[in-house]
Amino acid sequence: MKKNIPLVPLILASQLLSGQVVAEDVSIAIHGGAGTLKREHMSPQQEAVYRQKLEEAVTLGHTLLKQGKSAVEAVTETIKILEDSPLFNAGRGAVYTYNGEHELDASIMDGKDRAAGAVAGVKHVKNPITLARLIMEKSDHVFLSGDGAEQFAWLHDIERASTGYFDNEQRYKQLLDVKEKLAFQQISPVHTDYKFGTVGAVARDSQGNLAAATSTGGMTAKRYGRIGDSPVIGAGNFADNQSCAVSATGHGEFFIRYNVAADICARVRYQNIDAKTAADTVINQVLKEAGGEGGVIVVDSKGAVSMPFNTSGMYRASIDTKGKLTVGIFAGE
Amino acid sequence: MKKNIPLVPLILASQLLSGQVVAEDVSIAIHGGAGTLKREHMSPQQEAVYRQKLEEAVTLGHTLLKQGKSAVEAVTETIKILEDSPLFNAGRGAVYTYNGEHELDASIMDGKDRAAGAVAGVKHVKNPITLARLIMEKSDHVFLSGDGAEQFAWLHDIERASTGYFDNEQRYKQLLDVKEKLAFQQISPVHTDYKFGTVGAVARDSQGNLAAATSTGGMTAKRYGRIGDSPVIGAGNFADNQSCAVSATGHGEFFIRYNVAADICARVRYQNIDAKTAADTVINQVLKEAGGEGGVIVVDSKGAVSMPFNTSGMYRASIDTKGKLTVGIFAGE
Repeated sequence: MKKNIPLVPLILASQLLSGQVVAEDVSIAIHGGAGTLKREHMSPQQEAVYRQKLEEAVTLGHTLLKQGKSAVEAVTETIKILEDSPLFNAGRGAVYTYNGEHELDASIMDGKDRAAGAVAGVKHVKNPITLARLIMEKSDHVFLSGDGAEQFAWLHDIERASTGYFDNEQRYKQLLDVKEKLAFQQISPVHTDYKFGTVGAVARDSQGNLAAATSTGGMTAKRYGRIGDSPVIGAGNFADNQSCAVSATGHGEFFIRYNVAADICARVRYQNIDAKTAADTVINQVLKEAGGEGGVIVVDSKGAVSMPFNTSGMYRASIDTKGKLTVGIFAGE
Repeated sequence: MKKNIPLVPLILASQLLSGQVVAEDVSIAIHGGAGTLKREHMSPQQEAVYRQKLEEAVTLGHTLLKQGKSAVEAVTETIKILEDSPLFNAGRGAVYTYNGEHELDASIMDGKDRAAGAVAGVKHVKNPITLARLIMEKSDHVFLSGDGAEQFAWLHDIERASTGYFDNEQRYKQLLDVKEKLAFQQISPVHTDYKFGTVGAVARDSQGNLAAATSTGGMTAKRYGRIGDSPVIGAGNFADNQSCAVSATGHGEFFIRYNVAADICARVRYQNIDAKTAADTVINQVLKEAGGEGGVIVVDSKGAVSMPFNTSGMYRASIDTKGKLTVGIFAGE
């Protein structure tokens, strides 16, 4: 933490001048994917299980922030909770590729100095977010992929997933279902999979630093080494102390083409608008007009949280600078 | 071309109103990498060979544009010339990975509708830019990688490189040299390789559409499946008719973290400044202060070209809307 000390007086001064929050204010937001989530398709029990896990994850992250831990630390630990749950399409709950495997992507970014780490297509890493963070902190590179990324992981004692760790009967049925549709109806995976189960976390710590982290199993029945937006810095994940931290979930191809996470930050920096307005515009105007489904979670430089999405639901939770907890699944709650 | 017709009257009208160029104006710019290029390290003969190849490539692209071909077509064919030459670190002249292989990355983007295609880590594709374009036009995805991307390539009859096609004695010596330094001095590949030989092209066609394309062999002795900025849409490559088309070359990790190509376009759109000013600011202020070396080529919505870099040289050439050819290697020419 030593190296952050010089930042504190500056942050305090600027915040006192602008009459905004004090530097101690922390906040965090998380998502567990967006898509066609409707109340009538979910039992009250299922709903409760999701809400409980979202609350558990966001509360852990918030506790770490309150203890003075960095935003990077808080988003890492929060994502690990979501990766370790079979409920979400990331880590343990990752969907199957066309070949019946699992290819995991993740990324993390530190808004303080724009350090970043990303990994694509790893098959045996238990917590891809820890590998993304390792790449950020211990390599000269930002983005590693495939077998090579795993080689790097094992060199640094990243935890391997045990055999069968990613096995999941329900996900496997999803794969068979999608493959059947692909074979007989020539529908692309894109159009058969209406739930984008990526997980993400964004936070502002007590030093005023922002961080964003995203992790995913990608798209059911993906093939040809497809990389989505989650490990693409600027598309599915971005953090910059001067504007905001963003993690995205949705139809990744659109999020890459529209540079969604970085575009929200750019609008804040260059149009002098707040992060909520910028995120709403990108998700509900730009992306919606282009046909791109999904959502984002955003925390800005003052800790304000927004979580817009243009689908019928997004698993989400936040604890704002006043300590207020929000947990939601469907639109309009 | 049929689908572009509705755009033409709009473009003409807006351009007539603003008193700018007419829609027929076409322009193109290319780069062949940036880095520590100094006149005293290059014989007049070597210099002439590079200048000739740059002129050949940019002239071909310009001729296609003058014939009414699309910006996408022009940048594809121009990049193929550069990929087919052993002079540049892309296609045939790709550098060696740590394991003595070649892992090629490329991307392309159409500014008209932000369609994009990107490929990372292919080993046997003769012209990676044709694969990036195939992904853009014939897949539901934007970004494919590794063996899977090659599977997709062979399905669509993309040309394979013949055995030994990428062999290059000089590049192999570079690899041995870097590996020696890595072994004995613990210097990272980043700090031993001062020339970033990526190739790129940006163009504006007679319909007013922009396109950007980038192709590279990456970094000598790269390992762990490292992906640089070239295939990362928003980092090494971006195109958007409303602002500009950008292709980058340089220390890729910085270009990813600073979202360089898309940031230049965002500044044009949101700060209402011209593309030259935006590109200069990002390359010579933002990146330079961060320690990121490299440059970009840019063509804006009216066809204006700029080619800033913060290294001692960048292989570059352009033909502007008046038909004026410029070819350069060193700073200050």
